[in-house]
Amino acid sequence: MKTQMIMNAAGRMVPKKINGIPQTPFMGVGKYRTSGLKTSPPIRNCSEYPEDGNKVVSSLKEALVMAGIRDGMTISSHHHFRNGDLVMNQVFDRLHELGIKNLRWFPSAAFPCHSPIIKHLENGTIDLVEGSLNGDLGRFVSTGKMKKIGVLRSHGGRWQAVQDGEVHIDIAIVAAPSADAFGNATGEHGPSACGSLGFALVDSIYATQVIVVTDNLVPFPCIPWQIQGQNVDHVVVMDKIGIPEEIVSGTTSITLSKERLEIAEMAAKFVKVAGIIKDGFSFQAGAGGIPLAFSKYVREIMKNTGVKAKFIRGGSTKQLVKMLEEGITEYILDGQTFDLEGVRSLRENPGHISTSPFTSYNWHGKGNIASLVDVVVLGATEVDVNFNANVVTHSDGLLLHGIGGWQNCLFSKCTILAIPSIRKQNPIIVDELTTLVGPGELIDVIVTDQGIAINPLRKDLLAATENCDLPIRKIKEIKQDVDTIINLPVKKSVHSNELVSIVKWVDGTVIDSIFSILS
Amino acid sequence: MKTQMIMNAAGRMVPKKINGIPQTPFMGVGKYRTSGLKTSPPIRNCSEYPEDGNKVVSSLKEALVMAGIRDGMTISSHHHFRNGDLVMNQVFDRLHELGIKNLRWFPSAAFPCHSPIIKHLENGTIDLVEGSLNGDLGRFVSTGKMKKIGVLRSHGGRWQAVQDGEVHIDIAIVAAPSADAFGNATGEHGPSACGSLGFALVDSIYATQVIVVTDNLVPFPCIPWQIQGQNVDHVVVMDKIGIPEEIVSGTTSITLSKERLEIAEMAAKFVKVAGIIKDGFSFQAGAGGIPLAFSKYVREIMKNTGVKAKFIRGGSTKQLVKMLEEGITEYILDGQTFDLEGVRSLRENPGHISTSPFTSYNWHGKGNIASLVDVVVLGATEVDVNFNANVVTHSDGLLLHGIGGWQNCLFSKCTILAIPSIRKQNPIIVDELTTLVGPGELIDVIVTDQGIAINPLRKDLLAATENCDLPIRKIKEIKQDVDTIINLPVKKSVHSNELVSIVKWVDGTVIDSIFSILS
Repeated sequence: MKTQMIMNAAGRMVPKKINGIPQTPFMGVGKYRTSGLKTSPPIRNCSEYPEDGNKVVSSLKEALVMAGIRDGMTISSHHHFRNGDLVMNQVFDRLHELGIKNLRWFPSAAFPCHSPIIKHLENGTIDLVEGSLNGDLGRFVSTGKMKKIGVLRSHGGRWQAVQDGEVHIDIAIVAAPSADAFGNATGEHGPSACGSLGFALVDSIYATQVIVVTDNLVPFPCIPWQIQGQNVDHVVVMDKIGIPEEIVSGTTSITLSKERLEIAEMAAKFVKVAGIIKDGFSFQAGAGGIPLAFSKYVREIMKNTGVKAKFIRGGSTKQLVKMLEEGITEYILDGQTFDLEGVRSLRENPGHISTSPFTSYNWHGKGNIASLVDVVVLGATEVDVNFNANVVTHSDGLLLHGIGGWQNCLFSKCTILAIPSIRKQNPIIVDELTTLVGPGELIDVIVTDQGIAINPLRKDLLAATENCDLPIRKIKEIKQDVDTIINLPVKKSVHSNELVSIVKWVDGTVIDSIFSILS
Repeated sequence: MKTQMIMNAAGRMVPKKINGIPQTPFMGVGKYRTSGLKTSPPIRNCSEYPEDGNKVVSSLKEALVMAGIRDGMTISSHHHFRNGDLVMNQVFDRLHELGIKNLRWFPSAAFPCHSPIIKHLENGTIDLVEGSLNGDLGRFVSTGKMKKIGVLRSHGGRWQAVQDGEVHIDIAIVAAPSADAFGNATGEHGPSACGSLGFALVDSIYATQVIVVTDNLVPFPCIPWQIQGQNVDHVVVMDKIGIPEEIVSGTTSITLSKERLEIAEMAAKFVKVAGIIKDGFSFQAGAGGIPLAFSKYVREIMKNTGVKAKFIRGGSTKQLVKMLEEGITEYILDGQTFDLEGVRSLRENPGHISTSPFTSYNWHGKGNIASLVDVVVLGATEVDVNFNANVVTHSDGLLLHGIGGWQNCLFSKCTILAIPSIRKQNPIIVDELTTLVGPGELIDVIVTDQGIAINPLRKDLLAATENCDLPIRKIKEIKQDVDTIINLPVKKSVHSNELVSIVKWVDGTVIDSIFSILS
């Protein structure tokens, strides 16, 4: 059956329906208003749970069976171990052994370590991964091999989708570095400590059944109970749930290329020149080498000028921890812990605060903390001359990254994309995006090795930086120079018209479609 | 219209319906099973909230109007200031000025400081207080003057009622010792610091509109955000919201009577003799002089014997704080902070954990932490010879106390009522309770100045204490002695057949009825 497409407010063609579910096309930033009530999980009775509070069952398989596993259910998981997760491959192996079919996997993100799950997409155990699609999984989906249509969401969008009842989680799997038999769980302690468990919070609140999987069962009470046992049905003890060293994977180490460090440094200088670095300010730097290096340069500026921040939004890293411990920021508000120094700090420092997408990013909440952040520095795979940007596909159409908090962060008072102008002979500033993920009206500045471009909408930033010695240029001029350097014909779009995934905006509407590539 | 009554499983006559709402009679402990989904609040849109995160409005009245106040709505509040609350009288004064009628006030508890609210019950602004009824308010209701029928619930029952959709809160008022303009709020800091805000959590999550009232507006982020700004609609700044010194009111100071101290000491000795005080044990002592003194004696035993507790459930007091600071307990799990030392400790000590009724007491949750507590010591107004007990009315029928966490605590592994055998010439052990609040099967031990009685159901406790030198007796013998001492004819029940309130069990069923007294 051919998918009926419609043009959304950003001029992108999006499907009216996917996987049998009607979709709302993107209407513009802040334009779509929803109503109705949040969804809710079943009411329980204490008398149905063990009086001694011991919810430990003997195996993952037993827990899944007790949770009432059936064909077609939705199984969720969190990604605080990033590439070090040892649980979800086992979960789907067990589900395959049980003969379960057509599951939806709803992770907060997937990583290369999850490549073994592809076999379960092939053997019918899973028919849909609704979450970030990258690495081998991205290639699998990009080449049109997944049975159903994928849905890419931001971290905030994932909370919104669950809260609004768009995605009902039947069984949530919460890998927990420490837990007690009642199901209280934390990421702060234990041999596999990973810091925050904020991404699993929504799953624990709204799922019908919640299974905590731990390799460190502690006596009640497991404190701090980031996940409350009152939301947990079963506890499973395993030998090892994750490899904390693998948290620092791919996008969470500081880049080493000299050119990219220069971009990071230029972004920091820009922020200083624009007058944003002042006492009580706040910033966030996303995952990815350049944003992470940005923090390092901001720290140097702050130390040299004696400026103190009120808070830094993490993904926490050793850079941010250093700043907290030096007292040049009062708080780290941390959504996920990006390295082991972050884990230690979250455990030890009362100014290092664990947050969830509810706190930070939920567009269908009572206000948006992301819009209180003075400046955010992010990456992107492509930007067009109107500052629209892409973060999920490369110019060859291949699904390569999840959205993460990227869309949510765009609401910052100053959003900077700090990116190389060329990657592998591909220009990053393009005429037409492969995939639209972030509307240009929310993207204020592009910092590249070929200069800095300020969105003409931000007259205030243009004025503030008018007389500085930074290479501030028009985005079209930068593009022209880059195209000249590359001196290759502009690549044609290589994707087919076979829809493989949609991209949701933070409000649940569809901002773009992703088509299969010619593999 | 005459209320139709039915006999419940405890043999008490209860109404089939009150205030137009059908009721389920008590079916026995753990017998009633509910199903269905929890209730949920409306989905919101960030675009409807200020982009700069500033939700401060100029006055309480403006906030109430912006929250859409209308006749017949339900207004909730928390009682962390106990007798020092300065907010709710003002709220109802403003609502009266606005000409609003027939409101339901749904406090987590009311105190003598709320006596001025009686005039709003008289002038029609309020037609129902659904919460604890004591002091002047208790007398008002006991004499049949409230328009509607009251509903007494435990702290856990209040969470259950809101969560299950039995009580929909239209506007929640959260008095917050510190808050930021986004609505994040804490009780830990500020000139009116009161410690935990756990009782307000359910209101903040489920109410349609949430108003935070503070006398200490701090810059974002207000940490720890016990109440999340994401749940808050409006913030109001006032000169003074509460008198923290008044937290220690009535039931939260250690009794000074020698006789009552002896009861507390005997209860502590009993717990030791019964083998409950051992490494890793846990206890809870309720509000009321004797239970509070019990903690003091347990501390002495622990210090003398070198035993360490895993956790103590609070209401935290300076006694418990001392134990935490001495390291003889690892944690205080604190539902409300009973004195200023508790407030300080909650702020300073990472082992002092703020909890909510969700964590501790919600019977319609996934298990019951109350049943993990090794021993709890509580008060009571009356006990019968089958260990059934009353905590809300006195023998003259007057409503005098709220239930608090009393019903919820009964699920402890060993529940002790430590009570004087005679109060103001009234025997406390009676043939028939004025009001049944706690079923005898959950009450294990009565400690009185005339001896200790163990519930015959607890053969283990009888065996463990068989050869000790404590005055362990049959409850009927104690009763006989007391009746001989008093030497007065047993008082007849003095209440009429006019229903003024019902008492709910922890599962939402009706365990008893309260009738008006002949005033």
